[in-house]
Amino acid sequence: MSPILLNGIGTVTDHSEYIEPKVPFKNPQIHVKNPHLDTMEEDILYHFNLGTKTHNLPEMFGDIKFVCVGGSANRMKSFAQFIHQELALPGNMDDVTDICEGTDRYSMYKVGPVLSISHGMGIPSISIMLHELIKLLHHARCIDFILFRIGTSGGVGLAPGTVVVTDKAVDCFFRAQFEQVVLGKVITRSTELDVGVSKELLQCSSELEDVPTIIGNTMCTSDFYEGQGRLDGALCSFSTEDKLEYLRKAYNTGVRNIEMESTVFAAMCRACGIKAAVVCVTLLNRFDGDQIATPHDVLVEYQQRPQVLVAHFIKKRLGLVV
Amino acid sequence: MSPILLNGIGTVTDHSEYIEPKVPFKNPQIHVKNPHLDTMEEDILYHFNLGTKTHNLPEMFGDIKFVCVGGSANRMKSFAQFIHQELALPGNMDDVTDICEGTDRYSMYKVGPVLSISHGMGIPSISIMLHELIKLLHHARCIDFILFRIGTSGGVGLAPGTVVVTDKAVDCFFRAQFEQVVLGKVITRSTELDVGVSKELLQCSSELEDVPTIIGNTMCTSDFYEGQGRLDGALCSFSTEDKLEYLRKAYNTGVRNIEMESTVFAAMCRACGIKAAVVCVTLLNRFDGDQIATPHDVLVEYQQRPQVLVAHFIKKRLGLVV
Repeated sequence: MSPILLNGIGTVTDHSEYIEPKVPFKNPQIHVKNPHLDTMEEDILYHFNLGTKTHNLPEMFGDIKFVCVGGSANRMKSFAQFIHQELALPGNMDDVTDICEGTDRYSMYKVGPVLSISHGMGIPSISIMLHELIKLLHHARCIDFILFRIGTSGGVGLAPGTVVVTDKAVDCFFRAQFEQVVLGKVITRSTELDVGVSKELLQCSSELEDVPTIIGNTMCTSDFYEGQGRLDGALCSFSTEDKLEYLRKAYNTGVRNIEMESTVFAAMCRACGIKAAVVCVTLLNRFDGDQIATPHDVLVEYQQRPQVLVAHFIKKRLGLVV
Repeated sequence: MSPILLNGIGTVTDHSEYIEPKVPFKNPQIHVKNPHLDTMEEDILYHFNLGTKTHNLPEMFGDIKFVCVGGSANRMKSFAQFIHQELALPGNMDDVTDICEGTDRYSMYKVGPVLSISHGMGIPSISIMLHELIKLLHHARCIDFILFRIGTSGGVGLAPGTVVVTDKAVDCFFRAQFEQVVLGKVITRSTELDVGVSKELLQCSSELEDVPTIIGNTMCTSDFYEGQGRLDGALCSFSTEDKLEYLRKAYNTGVRNIEMESTVFAAMCRACGIKAAVVCVTLLNRFDGDQIATPHDVLVEYQQRPQVLVAHFIKKRLGLVV
């Protein structure tokens, strides 16, 4: 394999060194939809501890082609190390350093053309990260990139360990929309994701062993316990039958997994013209229970499946595998 | 000072060693409102990496009298070290260890009768933590404790650095309530906090230098940018005047600061009969801007103010200061 595309970690790259991805993909240029940004002398990306005056964002990030986000900081560090290995980048994978090390709100790692960022849990947490990420990519003049959320979820009628590539991201009323409150007024945004990327991910999964994958709807809730019909929270006012009825309704509308970030992720990416996909593994089948009691090593293996799938996608796009 | 109450970090304590707090306070026993919990053989607190079968929760946590939660893991570690120093506990404050070190979802530190836990950003993130914290305190048979959120916020018409003790936690429509979706149905919970604790905190602030403190309403939003009327997000469809009008409306209803966790914190504590208070410092005055451009060392000093105030409250309750 030739030393294509691949700058070392933390080094500055001349973009002309890059070989174009083998499969061309056109992401229309990122559309930051905010006229005020042009009037700002400086933009401080507070929760990343980065800024346009203190950092040369085009130099640091201009070559990004794939952005992968996930809840856990440790997991996104592991993913960066895994990608480093998979892309056979120069240098030691243990040397990846957190670009956001001045803050503990998020962690960020860059390995070649791949950016790996943690987003914490829930819609508000990922939304802060996405606002600052989208501005970062805008300031860095990135084009033609794809954004993936790789995460964990509860399964609805699936064997634990199944990977769900999201067709529609739906809210807790099974609607494919995201309600955003702007200055005390509710506005509604579409949560449609990129069909082409989803299909390509499904194709990738068929080329891998041990990454059972389906396409299905993903329900996004603002609560892990009452909001997802769990019987084991500090508060619970419903019966087992009520819970199962809700899960059956969800299943019948096409929901195959439940997590806590997909609607705002899909809505913001769509509003800004970013190609995006959601790829989550199910840790349990919610028809069978609520507690995550699976042994730690099995959970670790499950959590690697979305990483393996997206890594395969990236390698194919870069022409590193046929 | 006698070696009262104060077990070392991580050691097991015979509760009978404890001297009762000087000022008696009655928190009615914690009410976990979930009949299903009694039927469970084991309760795995997944996001803490703790469980009732794997850990002796009464031994580890039975002596807790003060629980302090805040967004940032680093800040909550600093707070634990600060409390260690303030209570003159035996051992080295640098030795505080993360009880949740098996997971990176939350961090937890125990110093004597004080538990310090991070909760990440936004309602869903703090809500997962609170469900598991309330179950933890229930399993540990803790009684008569107080729960504080110590955090950061945007100020509304206040000088940066002002500490706001929350009177009412209100939503983005200025209503003192929290809407929780349970199995696809919206239920409404009161966000009333403990008036006595708030007043006692205000009294404490008057005994300290450099901790300017007021009591006011706190608005809790699910979004940091559009939801709080910021002009500097990736998406913004409103004018400066629209923003200022919204902030003026908020001010006129008594809102003095804006953050992202207080309504669910107040609602869950109230539902479970836990005395609770929200104490946040303002990092900027939102009438003057949106970006947090204050120098790092000034922000660090601001962020210590809620810690200093709550530490003083704790010391008074324990009879360590008059």
